[in-house]
Amino acid sequence: MEIKTAVEIFKKHQIKTRAYEHAMGMLYYDARTAAPRDSSEPLGQTLGVLSEESYKLSVNDDFKALVAFLIKNKDSLDFQTRREAEEISDNIEKTGKIPIEEYSEYQMLINESEHVWHQAKLANDYASFEPLLAKVVEFQRRFAHYWAPDKDPYDTLLDKYEKGLTCEILDKYFSDIRTKLVPLIKKIAAKNSSYDFPFTRASYPIEKQREFSSYLMDVMSIDKNRCVIGETEHPFTIEFSKKDVRITTNYKEKNFLSNLYSVIHEGGHALYELNTGDSLMGSALAHGISMGVHESQSRFFENIIGRSKYFTNKIFPKLVEFFPENFKGVSPDDLYRAVNKSEPSLIRTEADELTYSMHILVRYELEKRLISGELSTKELPEAWNELYEKYLGITVPDDTHGVLQDTHWSGGSFGYFPSYSIGSAYAAQILASMEKDIDVWGCVSDPSGDLAPIVQWLTERIYKFGMMITPSEAIFNCCSAAFDPSYYTDYLIKKFTKIYDL
Amino acid sequence: MEIKTAVEIFKKHQIKTRAYEHAMGMLYYDARTAAPRDSSEPLGQTLGVLSEESYKLSVNDDFKALVAFLIKNKDSLDFQTRREAEEISDNIEKTGKIPIEEYSEYQMLINESEHVWHQAKLANDYASFEPLLAKVVEFQRRFAHYWAPDKDPYDTLLDKYEKGLTCEILDKYFSDIRTKLVPLIKKIAAKNSSYDFPFTRASYPIEKQREFSSYLMDVMSIDKNRCVIGETEHPFTIEFSKKDVRITTNYKEKNFLSNLYSVIHEGGHALYELNTGDSLMGSALAHGISMGVHESQSRFFENIIGRSKYFTNKIFPKLVEFFPENFKGVSPDDLYRAVNKSEPSLIRTEADELTYSMHILVRYELEKRLISGELSTKELPEAWNELYEKYLGITVPDDTHGVLQDTHWSGGSFGYFPSYSIGSAYAAQILASMEKDIDVWGCVSDPSGDLAPIVQWLTERIYKFGMMITPSEAIFNCCSAAFDPSYYTDYLIKKFTKIYDL
Repeated sequence: MEIKTAVEIFKKHQIKTRAYEHAMGMLYYDARTAAPRDSSEPLGQTLGVLSEESYKLSVNDDFKALVAFLIKNKDSLDFQTRREAEEISDNIEKTGKIPIEEYSEYQMLINESEHVWHQAKLANDYASFEPLLAKVVEFQRRFAHYWAPDKDPYDTLLDKYEKGLTCEILDKYFSDIRTKLVPLIKKIAAKNSSYDFPFTRASYPIEKQREFSSYLMDVMSIDKNRCVIGETEHPFTIEFSKKDVRITTNYKEKNFLSNLYSVIHEGGHALYELNTGDSLMGSALAHGISMGVHESQSRFFENIIGRSKYFTNKIFPKLVEFFPENFKGVSPDDLYRAVNKSEPSLIRTEADELTYSMHILVRYELEKRLISGELSTKELPEAWNELYEKYLGITVPDDTHGVLQDTHWSGGSFGYFPSYSIGSAYAAQILASMEKDIDVWGCVSDPSGDLAPIVQWLTERIYKFGMMITPSEAIFNCCSAAFDPSYYTDYLIKKFTKIYDL
Repeated sequence: MEIKTAVEIFKKHQIKTRAYEHAMGMLYYDARTAAPRDSSEPLGQTLGVLSEESYKLSVNDDFKALVAFLIKNKDSLDFQTRREAEEISDNIEKTGKIPIEEYSEYQMLINESEHVWHQAKLANDYASFEPLLAKVVEFQRRFAHYWAPDKDPYDTLLDKYEKGLTCEILDKYFSDIRTKLVPLIKKIAAKNSSYDFPFTRASYPIEKQREFSSYLMDVMSIDKNRCVIGETEHPFTIEFSKKDVRITTNYKEKNFLSNLYSVIHEGGHALYELNTGDSLMGSALAHGISMGVHESQSRFFENIIGRSKYFTNKIFPKLVEFFPENFKGVSPDDLYRAVNKSEPSLIRTEADELTYSMHILVRYELEKRLISGELSTKELPEAWNELYEKYLGITVPDDTHGVLQDTHWSGGSFGYFPSYSIGSAYAAQILASMEKDIDVWGCVSDPSGDLAPIVQWLTERIYKFGMMITPSEAIFNCCSAAFDPSYYTDYLIKKFTKIYDL
């Protein structure tokens, strides 16, 4: 076969694969934002069919031969096509190691498991979810074994979300963080009794909060013709194309900060996807490169920008305009201190910047033990509660506010959580470099401006490349240096020492 | 092959087909309720791929041979399987007559055309939509020719939505309606100046209207665990399974009746789909039988029940509770007369029961001429405006309120409109029969009851059979007689003569 013909077939194949991803992604999105309660059975059936079809599309001898041919001739390919071939070759190899019946059975299990988790969380009923979670863990362990029989299975799962990440790296990473941050967390806890911000618990009409979300999208320079906000239990971002990105949020009448920081966090994910290169559209590379780099963007906007004094000062007048009653007697400094109030708490997604990585540490340790088999899903709630006591010093009142709080495990995402913490650490290092290049805080402060210059800086170094670069290249493009977690701890210590006047 | 094996493969095939329909339906639903403006390009690409795959699934030699084998042995099949085989055999034959490139090109055209129509309607810009509409008409004409080269193409299209319906039948039907109703419409127009109901134009907060929709679903005994309401420009109902039915509506702050009757109309469609038999789940027969019968249900609930005095009296106290300010000084009789105010108007979906069929007549005549080629899409707006002058005596101010108002043509639905009118006529005949059987108005009046007994009656005679029966069998099951349009004209004349005291 001629290379040119092979490339043509290969490109068409990616469009086809993308179509299945689009359809399945849409069904997923709908299930979490709009679907009626009882729709999970027909949904499971449809996902079963589509995932099997999509599997067969890639894992078949003809296509494997085509990809092998391209890999053999990779030096004759342009860079993008070469990266596509490499990426797809890796995926086929991985997916092909899972027998098709198991693959399809797993897809249906996940659909059921996410549905049951949702009900279980509402009803504080871990027991109803446990048998499904046990199956998910079993599948994850088996998949890891299929992919790399000689490797520690949890390392294999970590690598899926952040190439090269291992328990060895993370053990050291978390140990450093614990050593440096726990003393600070304790000092702050001792001071916290005097910090109270009742305006954060006042009633904020949801319709008004919806309008405020739209304002936040403008501030972040998110293109609303290509991105909309849906509503869901547990916020996430999904993209079907750079022309169609969905943010989701969860409005709580008595906690407006929850939505505010959800939108900024998910907005960071959205900016990444909205700004991948045009030439990648329809290609297998038209996504963010890894979970770690993705979370670096969401947490960069949520925390480093969104919880900075410059940003809270910027949005303060708008909050007063939208919620005049609630903001009576509240100063810009109150807002800044409220969004940075650090205290050990129950819910990860609402944790402050400083204690956040402790929540991740709990999950990291539990995942390791679940996947190794050292801990059973039956024992999980007790182990969860023990670790919250140990690392955060708080008592978990029930499973809804404990082990059932996150959707990840129900969806089979084991090895994902650490990327939140790693992403936060990337973000701190990226900031240090960005500050040398552009006037970050001048841009954030500009009352009539949006964050476009910051987005532009990130687009040039990370976003536009999609999956053409590796996570380490993304960091190197920004920082001209390898990943260094000390930026993260330095940043946190400096910020919180100042806020709490220690 | 053994029959048993053939049936097994055949049943699995239907589940697969259903999965593609589910995915494509979901993408359609999302595009109309949630998607960002610029998402139409990636959506078109995905629909192109999925429709081609779905086409190949059914139109291939293996599957054709299987279906032919079942048809040959149809006397050995149970009734449902036999009907499935007949239905699918018909479809394959029809679809197979369209070359695959044209089929896939058409799917993409429709996606673009619906998108452009939407923009054109907002901008009152028919010219931007016209070239696409011209292509759609051309495709429809060509498809009709593929399906039945010797038949009048518009008859072929009519038959697609209501088996057996022809221009000959409709010419007579509409001529009767015109003769009987136009004098009444004129008499009422002469009286109308004294009828004004300002409360219908007051401001009704959309959040409150949303809550009211939920109450309406309860009254209609719609199971909210299997059915939810989305929001869109032009309301429609879509079902993915009897466990997942979606109603859509459009909230207008200054026109609460628009949403109220949208929900009841779409709720009628939803009830049909929610109550198809359990044994049909996943089968090709798990849908309402035809557009005419479907519209008979939506218009039965919207008009015959929803605009009856018993129903307006029933919901009146709830309206007062929800909107106390707006209903100050309004009597139950005002509400009844407001929702039955008959006057020639511009917008079909907001037309009263009496003038409604005149709107359909306009579209019927235009479709006939478009498909025959007698009228070009360029000349369409002018012809539209002329017929509104002729049949309704009103002047169309712009295309947004004229030829661009309906989505149907942009989606390739030619021959669909008459089923709205035929459905209304079915509904009147069904009522006459239902009244003999159960205490319809006692049920509607019961202040603590819902419409479940009415739904039950219809389920036993129509809904539960899905596509196992023909439209005429559905009517016969209800009325023990063939379709007779005189029930419709009698019903309208009696109702409006009384309301307008003529």
